[in-house]
Amino acid sequence: MTTTTGRDVQELGPDACWRLLGSARLGRVAVVLDGGVDIFPVNFLVKDRSIYFGSAPGSKLVDITEHPVVAFEADGIENRRRWSVVARGRATRLGFDSEIEESGVMDLHSLAPTDKWNYVRIEPTAVTGRSFRSARQRAV
Amino acid sequence: MTTTTGRDVQELGPDACWRLLGSARLGRVAVVLDGGVDIFPVNFLVKDRSIYFGSAPGSKLVDITEHPVVAFEADGIENRRRWSVVARGRATRLGFDSEIEESGVMDLHSLAPTDKWNYVRIEPTAVTGRSFRSARQRAV
Repeated sequence: MTTTTGRDVQELGPDACWRLLGSARLGRVAVVLDGGVDIFPVNFLVKDRSIYFGSAPGSKLVDITEHPVVAFEADGIENRRRWSVVARGRATRLGFDSEIEESGVMDLHSLAPTDKWNYVRIEPTAVTGRSFRSARQRAV
Repeated sequence: MTTTTGRDVQELGPDACWRLLGSARLGRVAVVLDGGVDIFPVNFLVKDRSIYFGSAPGSKLVDITEHPVVAFEADGIENRRRWSVVARGRATRLGFDSEIEESGVMDLHSLAPTDKWNYVRIEPTAVTGRSFRSARQRAV
């Protein structure tokens, strides 16, 4: 969140961002919705530098294709440093069973077989990240 | 994220949402920015059912007053259940030293005295939350 120096904030390169994203399971998707903005926690996975997640039946995230430009955030702690990565890009709903199965995204959820989930891929156009020394939850 | 039943998801009432928000320190703010959406991790505190956080000098969050309708998310684990709370509302930049000092928001950051931070208050118009059994990070 900050670009100032002197507080032990390190900018992360793309490789580090993707590695850290790949180590996390819980992220948040921010979308433009109803003229405002909304945010949803999602379980996700990373494959080939895309982000995949499922959207439960009835979720407002079903409408993601109406405003497909999204932002995604995940964070965690590694080596006593808190990291946060933000990816921005376009979200598309996966339309083919083959896409869904190959992505592995179905494994994120312990589904009842009848659940009609939607699966979404974000292909980021920009990925940025920072890490900072943290004894506990602290963003900056 | 889901309203389906059968997967041990509980909707949280406003009192539970605020209590849980008050127990967390790290949240994420989603804003409309540059015609799209962006998301920022922030340290925050809760006071009188408002959310306060600081925005570092140079942060894009300085522009929050141009698009003040924001969404905010925080999550955590309590009693082996993961919870997530989303608040939506209007963000205002605190304009008076007295407001800033009374909120306690300055205590969130270990500042160098010369840092010119901005402080923001979100007054939510809607707060929703869910909890779900979780052995680890899992949103749904």
